[in-house]
Amino acid sequence: MNNTELKSYMQSVGQQARAASRIVAKADTALKNQALIAMADAIVRDEQKLLAANAKDLENAHAKELEAALVDRLTLSAKGVANMAEGLLQIAALADPVGAISGLDYRPSGIQVGKMRVPLGVIGIIYEARPNVTADAAGLCLKAGNAAILRGGSEAIHSNQAIAACVREGLHVAGLPETAVQVIETTDRAAVGELITMQDFVDVIVPRGGKGLIERISNEARVPVIKHLDGVCHVYIDDQADLDKAIRIADNAKTQRYGTCNTMETLLIHAGIANEILPALSKIYLDKGVELRGDAAACALVTQMNAATEEDWFAEYLAPILSIRIVENLDQAIDHISYYSSQHTDAIVTENYTRARRFMREVDSSSVMVNTSTRFADGFEYGLGAEIGISTDKIHARGPVGLEGLTSQKYVVFGDGQIRQ
Amino acid sequence: MNNTELKSYMQSVGQQARAASRIVAKADTALKNQALIAMADAIVRDEQKLLAANAKDLENAHAKELEAALVDRLTLSAKGVANMAEGLLQIAALADPVGAISGLDYRPSGIQVGKMRVPLGVIGIIYEARPNVTADAAGLCLKAGNAAILRGGSEAIHSNQAIAACVREGLHVAGLPETAVQVIETTDRAAVGELITMQDFVDVIVPRGGKGLIERISNEARVPVIKHLDGVCHVYIDDQADLDKAIRIADNAKTQRYGTCNTMETLLIHAGIANEILPALSKIYLDKGVELRGDAAACALVTQMNAATEEDWFAEYLAPILSIRIVENLDQAIDHISYYSSQHTDAIVTENYTRARRFMREVDSSSVMVNTSTRFADGFEYGLGAEIGISTDKIHARGPVGLEGLTSQKYVVFGDGQIRQ
Repeated sequence: MNNTELKSYMQSVGQQARAASRIVAKADTALKNQALIAMADAIVRDEQKLLAANAKDLENAHAKELEAALVDRLTLSAKGVANMAEGLLQIAALADPVGAISGLDYRPSGIQVGKMRVPLGVIGIIYEARPNVTADAAGLCLKAGNAAILRGGSEAIHSNQAIAACVREGLHVAGLPETAVQVIETTDRAAVGELITMQDFVDVIVPRGGKGLIERISNEARVPVIKHLDGVCHVYIDDQADLDKAIRIADNAKTQRYGTCNTMETLLIHAGIANEILPALSKIYLDKGVELRGDAAACALVTQMNAATEEDWFAEYLAPILSIRIVENLDQAIDHISYYSSQHTDAIVTENYTRARRFMREVDSSSVMVNTSTRFADGFEYGLGAEIGISTDKIHARGPVGLEGLTSQKYVVFGDGQIRQ
Repeated sequence: MNNTELKSYMQSVGQQARAASRIVAKADTALKNQALIAMADAIVRDEQKLLAANAKDLENAHAKELEAALVDRLTLSAKGVANMAEGLLQIAALADPVGAISGLDYRPSGIQVGKMRVPLGVIGIIYEARPNVTADAAGLCLKAGNAAILRGGSEAIHSNQAIAACVREGLHVAGLPETAVQVIETTDRAAVGELITMQDFVDVIVPRGGKGLIERISNEARVPVIKHLDGVCHVYIDDQADLDKAIRIADNAKTQRYGTCNTMETLLIHAGIANEILPALSKIYLDKGVELRGDAAACALVTQMNAATEEDWFAEYLAPILSIRIVENLDQAIDHISYYSSQHTDAIVTENYTRARRFMREVDSSSVMVNTSTRFADGFEYGLGAEIGISTDKIHARGPVGLEGLTSQKYVVFGDGQIRQ
């Protein structure tokens, strides 16, 4: 496609999405669930087709010598296919947010005012290698009454198209417009530039992927973006912490999984308790192969620790590396977090009531925790059912974004002939 | 100021606002209320000073021959001064949204997850002639725990500076940073350009004013904007309407006030009831001096009606002019509204249950009403206490925006040592 053709293709995708969004916004719960279940059925039935399409993408990835981590994210197993179908069934089982009315209170004038949850309209999802996002995002957007335009990574184009065929089939079975979920057919990067500037046809963009992708999209978008940039998560162990809880939490927050955005990257320890807890904790980390990087005070307590640099405090390692700092008190811990945290998820371990309350109030992150592991910051763990991503923004949605984050609320007013005086 | 000086001035305003925002975010309710009450006291005490400052602005406005409507909005009366003070006291009386935790439910893992309401940070307000916005916006932003940067119209600079002095005094009395509310001191229009692009220092922009101002800001802003463009509001009278209610509502929605954004601009009437209701309604309008512009079917029923043009259906008159269209059924009414409405406020008058439900669900406006007047679309009438504006956007805030719209929510998680499996 040349530039003119691309622009006209994207405009037509946008127009069709807008038209479809009006229909899915009105669709009742049973119809949307029927589509989701039919999508899942098609995915289960087409397992071999999906794996074959994925094999083609993997072949190209190997030919292009793409990096191992990317190939890993690109790979779809039989279990991955089953999980996609299962995810769609789980979304079907969630309560329908659309049309729910809350807070319907009478006012002194006699009118009754409440808020009705409504779809956002058209949601553009831009993602990288993981093909399962195609099914997850399609399902979440549809259940929330939105049309979706999906733009996956070029390396996953065959997998995404094969999944998209199952999604379209599900929509067709339920009698919903197949254009309610469209997967961009071109791998041209300029398509992203069009998608994020079509203000008439796209209501919000959700980018999922590396920091580079998300920064580029945020800077160039002319429609609102729900994004999370990175997860530099902290655990602060207070000197009034329960030591058993502290060790269990600090271990879990770092080592339960290394590559996730809610993994702890920096551990802060109150100076009054550091020599009591740090040697034991360090042994756990070192036994699991975690590289430790500390400030001078931490290094003085543990021989197998490297000196941390200023960059370490900002780093999202996504790897078995942990930076450790000894702080004088809660204020210094909060100051450190205010300065270095990416406002994703931060936790305090303490038995002190007032310090717990201060930490919860003053730490300005999308999730703030007391006496538990940062690894819990997740849509499933929070009971949202599923998530389209985790927002570190403050506007519209913050933290794990589920069906509610993909909707808005309008005011509804019921009267019996009241007029304004 | 030259460009470099202006940029550096705005950067310093932004930095101070960011620093102050951290302090007001933590400020407890009593302290914020103390500041609000002290602001109100200062305004009452300084009545003569404020009127004198306003007289200076009015003198300049007359010298520059500004249009009468603008001079009207610019004018501050003794009653206007009292209203500003009263508004601040009302904000002090509202519940503090900051720190409120909702939905604190246990999850199967044993963690307890809820949402805490938190300030947005720094809010930029850009407004035109009305000086009372200086006090209203300062009060609302402060109560919601935010710092504010206010940019009023150059024609109101003396009034705004005098009000700002009272606001600063209130902050000072409560021991809060005076930089928590800053009024831009330069009338240079380039200051707006800086304000709406300082992503590091400003979290959201709320423009208040004419469509031209708001469109310019939306197009050029690099920070999120909470806006409403215009209010092309509809009332649809169904053929199953109660005629008494219909006449009372259609009269009130148009004639109670002409210049407000929630005033009806287009009346839609079901063909089956038009000849029964339109002559009586038209008489009411014509007696009040409202010019009527109708489609062919409406003109056929009322002699003193001009033919409406395509532009009329899109028009926000803000004046005693009303466009009237006869529609065949509910579908045609909804289609008309979908196409021409500015998604501000639209109402149906009907006794039919199913049609009322369909209208509520399918009309995609920030307020949707049954059997009552569009004039109720207002923060005070809805029980928000006060409003910073009415949003016709879907992202973040929709409809009248009060204290809640000036906050976000973060997840809070309480544990007892739980770790993720």
